[in-house]
Amino acid sequence: MITRIDLNADMGESFGPWPMGADAALLQVITSANIACGFHAGDPDVMAQAMAVAVENGVGIGAHPGLPDLQGFGRRRMQIAAAEARHLVAYQLGAAQAMARMAGGQVRHLKLHGALANMAAEDEALARACYEGALAVDPEIIVMVISGTAQARAAQALGARIAHEIFADRAYTEDGLLMDRRLPGAVIHDADEVCARIIAMLKAGAIITAQGTHLPAEIDTICLHGDTAGAVALAQALHAALTGEGVSLKPFDGPRAP
Amino acid sequence: MITRIDLNADMGESFGPWPMGADAALLQVITSANIACGFHAGDPDVMAQAMAVAVENGVGIGAHPGLPDLQGFGRRRMQIAAAEARHLVAYQLGAAQAMARMAGGQVRHLKLHGALANMAAEDEALARACYEGALAVDPEIIVMVISGTAQARAAQALGARIAHEIFADRAYTEDGLLMDRRLPGAVIHDADEVCARIIAMLKAGAIITAQGTHLPAEIDTICLHGDTAGAVALAQALHAALTGEGVSLKPFDGPRAP
Amino acid sequence: MITRIDLNADMGESFGPWPMGADAALLQVITSANIACGFHAGDPDVMAQAMAVAVENGVGIGAHPGLPDLQGFGRRRMQIAAAEARHLVAYQLGAAQAMARMAGGQVRHLKLHGALANMAAEDEALARACYEGALAVDPEIIVMVISGTAQARAAQALGARIAHEIFADRAYTEDGLLMDRRLPGAVIHDADEVCARIIAMLKAGAIITAQGTHLPAEIDTICLHGDTAGAVALAQALHAALTGEGVSLKPFDGPRAP
Amino acid sequence: MITRIDLNADMGESFGPWPMGADAALLQVITSANIACGFHAGDPDVMAQAMAVAVENGVGIGAHPGLPDLQGFGRRRMQIAAAEARHLVAYQLGAAQAMARMAGGQVRHLKLHGALANMAAEDEALARACYEGALAVDPEIIVMVISGTAQARAAQALGARIAHEIFADRAYTEDGLLMDRRLPGAVIHDADEVCARIIAMLKAGAIITAQGTHLPAEIDTICLHGDTAGAVALAQALHAALTGEGVSLKPFDGPRAP
Repeated sequence: MITRIDLNADMGESFGPWPMGADAALLQVITSANIACGFHAGDPDVMAQAMAVAVENGVGIGAHPGLPDLQGFGRRRMQIAAAEARHLVAYQLGAAQAMARMAGGQVRHLKLHGALANMAAEDEALARACYEGALAVDPEIIVMVISGTAQARAAQALGARIAHEIFADRAYTEDGLLMDRRLPGAVIHDADEVCARIIAMLKAGAIITAQGTHLPAEIDTICLHGDTAGAVALAQALHAALTGEGVSLKPFDGPRAP
Repeated sequence: MITRIDLNADMGESFGPWPMGADAALLQVITSANIACGFHAGDPDVMAQAMAVAVENGVGIGAHPGLPDLQGFGRRRMQIAAAEARHLVAYQLGAAQAMARMAGGQVRHLKLHGALANMAAEDEALARACYEGALAVDPEIIVMVISGTAQARAAQALGARIAHEIFADRAYTEDGLLMDRRLPGAVIHDADEVCARIIAMLKAGAIITAQGTHLPAEIDTICLHGDTAGAVALAQALHAALTGEGVSLKPFDGPRAP
Repeated sequence: MITRIDLNADMGESFGPWPMGADAALLQVITSANIACGFHAGDPDVMAQAMAVAVENGVGIGAHPGLPDLQGFGRRRMQIAAAEARHLVAYQLGAAQAMARMAGGQVRHLKLHGALANMAAEDEALARACYEGALAVDPEIIVMVISGTAQARAAQALGARIAHEIFADRAYTEDGLLMDRRLPGAVIHDADEVCARIIAMLKAGAIITAQGTHLPAEIDTICLHGDTAGAVALAQALHAALTGEGVSLKPFDGPRAP
Repeated sequence: MITRIDLNADMGESFGPWPMGADAALLQVITSANIACGFHAGDPDVMAQAMAVAVENGVGIGAHPGLPDLQGFGRRRMQIAAAEARHLVAYQLGAAQAMARMAGGQVRHLKLHGALANMAAEDEALARACYEGALAVDPEIIVMVISGTAQARAAQALGARIAHEIFADRAYTEDGLLMDRRLPGAVIHDADEVCARIIAMLKAGAIITAQGTHLPAEIDTICLHGDTAGAVALAQALHAALTGEGVSLKPFDGPRAP
């Protein structure tokens, strides 16, 4: 049984006059926050505010770099060369570090956002480029990777500090990948079901696929979504269920791979 | 006689497919480079390249934050609240720090760009907000200010490390301000005249106005322009003239105001 | 007594993943919609949607060009040259015409947004440049101007078709200008008060200032705000009150000044 | 023998302070200009200028819409849904129409730019979406397609007016596609060779592949590049060679497919 876990969620995804997300509610539940860095969401004012509330609530702070596509919220795949990936991750991490420092905090982890994350989960060379960018800026940064993907392999090959992530409300295929959102059952909306499967995974130390197969996996953090009212309720339910099971909720340590 | 001086110029002002500036030629002449940070010019790829050549040439590296106006190159005044100024300077400085670190260097000074610089030269509260943003990120940053303006007063009030700047090719009014570019004689194109007046100013420890008045001033660095072929030739002429006078050319130390 | 009036409101102010406004509710009340054109808000997808619902509801369609400042929502003043103003209004109007045509409608009026509108209300040369840009694209466009301001004078001097606008919920100074939002009483929140004063103004054919002075004015359309729940209720109350007074609500004809 | 041909080139690809291209030199040679619309290059001021010189030189004016990626110059592939493609083409075409009208001209053709063009050459559904966007704005627009590709099939299926394009300096594969730029021989730099092969193609009414195969093709316009000094010289050489062969150089008529 995994007896200690981190809960992470995206934050600071407003832009200019447009609010997004339920940051305040989520901060009661999560232990790590992934803060947008201005390319797919966020701007210097939004970031300053998000960093301040993250510091105030004592959660672990992460940079959440994305593709330079505000209109598409970084969710549209773009053809990015390795050097471009390296540079855009470094740039956004640096900006996040500055905004965190201004708020009296510091960035301790990095998680890729949206289409950049999806591409890096499939393409180890791209993942490597992104993480090289991050490590060139801070060799101690903890790279949050989607457990079992090319992201994890790239971070491990680089000798980075790592936190492995699973998803609370997404079904897994037999390959250990997220089921395509458009397929029935790909997103799990029922809070009881979400809680039961996550606890089963922690007990098994494995990702449990939609068909019930156990795929042994490292699990350091659980990704929550916060952009809907239902998502916040689900996050709260999971928080309660984990606590009830005696699981300790705190930020990951991010050890280096052996 | 001031016997030691820094020469600074703007660099990294390309964007995407569009080149700008004569960075390579200027790097033979200057001792400090002000590198654009992506808001008015520059992008992560351009910055990575500019940082690498700055490190390679051993010049002092500066962040050169500007207004978020790419089309206007940061030269159109915008109504910016103090908090917005604080945040956009911090964000850009952080991005520059990351790109410098990736290139094996580090940002040691900060200079405001374009309309943001012009507004801050007139408005001490705005200058203060900008510099607070920079100092919150790095209390040791050297703030490059236009000598004798609200910029200088704000940096001094904040107890910052400071480098005072004069302009090689711009005429000064009796108030110690730059003459409006649109007036005849405001920009000095003749290299001999530029060299003679700068040497006279260093000897006098004063800004010498278009009318010949001596205004005692602190002078730590001379701003060169690099966006025209003529400007590079002028920079080279000034470099030679200063060396010929026995003036030592090296980056400023940036002491704190007493 | 003015017995016919138009009610206008801003629409299509979402951007990418970020919604804004209560377009659906407002469309039950207004007779003309001002649709953002992608510079301060809106994007091609948002515009397509806004145009479609405007056509479906039979309201008059207007282009609502703003400054190129998405983060600031076009509300931060920028120093814009006359030629720049001309071009950015023409560009945005053309984009709006295309999106309207795609939805089976057409743009019949143009209203400046945010800081661009505020600057043009004070600066006749800037207003003229903006409207020249619009008229070069469509000489039949109806220019919606803030009654009694430099906007109105510029449109009249150009011989444009005009609709004069007053504001439902904003107090007026003795000069016929909007009272500074930051002053107490500048924004009127009480629906009954809004209805009473608008009906009084229509009866008087005059703007009635906060002190009660009657300033004779042309009044063709009333500006409603739609970005808050309260604003929609207020819009509905005003619609009911005007109908109850026998005022006919329909889009303005936009005659040319005599 | 094809005895009449159009020569087209991209124009208006500057942005803000950054110039690009040799518009003035090319205008002496080409008969149609493809003008950037602000998403991958160009801005309202640049477009106004480009439209004015196009009108002055009497060339056919085309809108040249691209992906919303200024930094990548629209050359990085992006995952775009059909509706997004429809809307972004319509938006940019409308903007171009307005800027043309302001200059006293009008947009008569549309050509897709960069990665959007490449994707549409392979993906008929995407090409169809793009052209539906254009035709919804102007049913009389002439769609310039890369001869023999999915672009051509989509335009034909829509019953659009069409102009078929071949490339002056690019080698063709046996499939009638452009050879990958990175392969040796893919780009032809020798002016004599360019002239000889284009004249051979016009005589044959066929695309001639790198291996010498004749692929019968419709040829209405030849694409020239203008971003290098060599390219302008090449354009001038081709212009002279075609005139010498008695080929008439004028804008295409753009008939509908039978």
